[in-house]
Amino acid sequence: MPQINAARLLSDLRSLSQFGAYRTGVHRPTFSKADMGARHWLAQQYEAVGLQAHIDGVGNVFGMPRSERPSLLIGSHAESQNYAGWLDGALGVIYGLEIARTFAETPDCAALPIAPVAWADEEGHYVSMLGSRSFIGDIDEAEIDRAVNVDHGLPLRDALRAAGLSGVPRSLVEPGCHVGYLEAHVEQGDTLEASSKRIGVVTSIVGLWQYSIVFHGIQNHAGTTRMAIRKDAGVAAAMLAMAIAKRFPEVAGTRSVWTTGRITLEPGAPNIIPGKAEMLFQFRDSEMPVLESLDAVLRELIEGVATKTCCRVDIERTEASEPWQMDRAFQAAIENAAARHAPGTCVRMPSGAGHDAQVVARKLRAAMLFVPSIGGVSHHWTENTDDADLVLGCQVLADAAEMILRREGGEM
Amino acid sequence: MPQINAARLLSDLRSLSQFGAYRTGVHRPTFSKADMGARHWLAQQYEAVGLQAHIDGVGNVFGMPRSERPSLLIGSHAESQNYAGWLDGALGVIYGLEIARTFAETPDCAALPIAPVAWADEEGHYVSMLGSRSFIGDIDEAEIDRAVNVDHGLPLRDALRAAGLSGVPRSLVEPGCHVGYLEAHVEQGDTLEASSKRIGVVTSIVGLWQYSIVFHGIQNHAGTTRMAIRKDAGVAAAMLAMAIAKRFPEVAGTRSVWTTGRITLEPGAPNIIPGKAEMLFQFRDSEMPVLESLDAVLRELIEGVATKTCCRVDIERTEASEPWQMDRAFQAAIENAAARHAPGTCVRMPSGAGHDAQVVARKLRAAMLFVPSIGGVSHHWTENTDDADLVLGCQVLADAAEMILRREGGEM
Repeated sequence: MPQINAARLLSDLRSLSQFGAYRTGVHRPTFSKADMGARHWLAQQYEAVGLQAHIDGVGNVFGMPRSERPSLLIGSHAESQNYAGWLDGALGVIYGLEIARTFAETPDCAALPIAPVAWADEEGHYVSMLGSRSFIGDIDEAEIDRAVNVDHGLPLRDALRAAGLSGVPRSLVEPGCHVGYLEAHVEQGDTLEASSKRIGVVTSIVGLWQYSIVFHGIQNHAGTTRMAIRKDAGVAAAMLAMAIAKRFPEVAGTRSVWTTGRITLEPGAPNIIPGKAEMLFQFRDSEMPVLESLDAVLRELIEGVATKTCCRVDIERTEASEPWQMDRAFQAAIENAAARHAPGTCVRMPSGAGHDAQVVARKLRAAMLFVPSIGGVSHHWTENTDDADLVLGCQVLADAAEMILRREGGEM
Repeated sequence: MPQINAARLLSDLRSLSQFGAYRTGVHRPTFSKADMGARHWLAQQYEAVGLQAHIDGVGNVFGMPRSERPSLLIGSHAESQNYAGWLDGALGVIYGLEIARTFAETPDCAALPIAPVAWADEEGHYVSMLGSRSFIGDIDEAEIDRAVNVDHGLPLRDALRAAGLSGVPRSLVEPGCHVGYLEAHVEQGDTLEASSKRIGVVTSIVGLWQYSIVFHGIQNHAGTTRMAIRKDAGVAAAMLAMAIAKRFPEVAGTRSVWTTGRITLEPGAPNIIPGKAEMLFQFRDSEMPVLESLDAVLRELIEGVATKTCCRVDIERTEASEPWQMDRAFQAAIENAAARHAPGTCVRMPSGAGHDAQVVARKLRAAMLFVPSIGGVSHHWTENTDDADLVLGCQVLADAAEMILRREGGEM
């Protein structure tokens, strides 16, 4: 039975967090110097375990076992959101490394091939889930040509060149090479903490539908234009936000969430009536019919607001990912392992956040394990998890990996 | 009786619009090369009329008559908003020039001293109404030291140095030197056009109260944070905007206006619940009790929203100008002149926008004349006024100036 090294695990998590350290968190945007430093460091760690390490043409770092048997991919993404937490994807990346190392040094596990992986740009500094999408063959060169950084506009091609990845081939999943994929991640919510659980077994990853909604009113002087003749795009945006707040609960599922993350009024001056208002709005649910109902209600509300405010409206759905179910046998393996190490502390739950696992799951059997987020905090430099939970999560995932590989190899 | 030269007036307006020409409008921010070019050109035009021209330490351009008698100041501001209209303040500046020229060449008016003036930075690229406030002694060196450009952050001191104005004294209003001040401006609204009037006589300039309202919620992941535990600062901002839209009409005066010009959600990412929301909000009215009522209602609404959304709120009133009445005798002079040239086309109205006249009025008798804005458009490069209205406005102001100066000189 694999026994992970808790001190080494925590030490490696700390080491990785030094790349782009920011307060108690990290600022490690994809393909930044800190991010590429982290990826090269990971490749070195993979090599030290005896794996064949390589960084592919979009920055994915693979540690491939020197084995004929199909391997189990274990990992997550290595970059961070801006000025965000030290764990997030880094947790799953280091779990992959620690499990590969533990298996390599455990005699009766040494023949069970673990392939640790660190995906690139799950966070979407350029293209959301770039690395895992590339791996399953879901991205073409044209999309890479078009992509630019969301913060500073640098083309992805230029970033890849600066990272030394121009001309490096992109690794594609090969049939029969992998048993499946396991990913660990911090929960990013308070479900585990609020219910005093320590391990979350992800049943499904929610679908995320995102919209750019632009109201066009008439820009005019805020002092001289009578209220009666205004077509204020900002008022339209606020009205829509409140209409959503009132109506969505009536059609939402019990775990649906919806968010207006950005409102931009143009020109944005205090003495000018906004002629244009853009809202970035999204909702998520694990059931397709719920997503479809929310879409229909949203469109109805938008039309109503446009009519009431005499503003023209453009609506664009910029993302519409499907909810994705995790592999049931893999879920059971995680649950069994959790029952062994911390009985009664495991709970099944959908993932409200998107993860590389939902992409990989389109080609390979896949499952995810969550550890608690203290206070439910995520995407902020104060994000954290108790050390004991960090260690437990890795041990549970190691045991689950053993079960999965033995079953695949006909040993169980 | 002074007879203005219509062709020359229109030609000068066109000439001034070449400084910083942008599409059919102008982009002439205060102390930019275009703005300083315009100010030097104006000084040359004043000299050509036989006036003593000078540009003072904050960029005000004066054309002082070589006369012992108190003069009538006529002008407005020479700079523009960014990418804005060709008339706006430029209209009043060129009216001052044309009226000074007309008086100089009209034998029975030559002894009536007109002092054209072009104020600096009424538009507030650095300090709103900088030039007129400096003229009446309402600004000190410390405020000038502190001021920076609202768009690019350059200190005002650096801009003055680049404009060649370092060490140049600021001109202060001297008791007994001026009969008063007349200012013409485009209406910037549709009151004249909608009622088929051609001349607006400004009765008062509204007070403008402006606020920065910041809601503090809790920033968190938009996918993993349950709706029930969210403290979404963006929802608070939208709720306040709608509460204002519902409640303000009940307490507002008939011509009150209110505007949310900017809403900024932080961090502004589609997948992050906004932890902070800032609104820039303002209202205007010509009656102090109305302004006070609106202030009280606003504070009540803000507290209610903060309580409902569990967000903390900071509120700062950043501006609270008093409404200012225009001189009644000057108003009558404009009205009489309008009745002579275009009977039945003149209307008394408050000004919803702020103007240098409200500053100068604290030291000198002052009045304003409006010409129609086509479609009510203002602060946009498509702003325009019919040529016939441009000419009529200048002729009416010239006649009003004659009446005022003759009455002051004891001739009427």
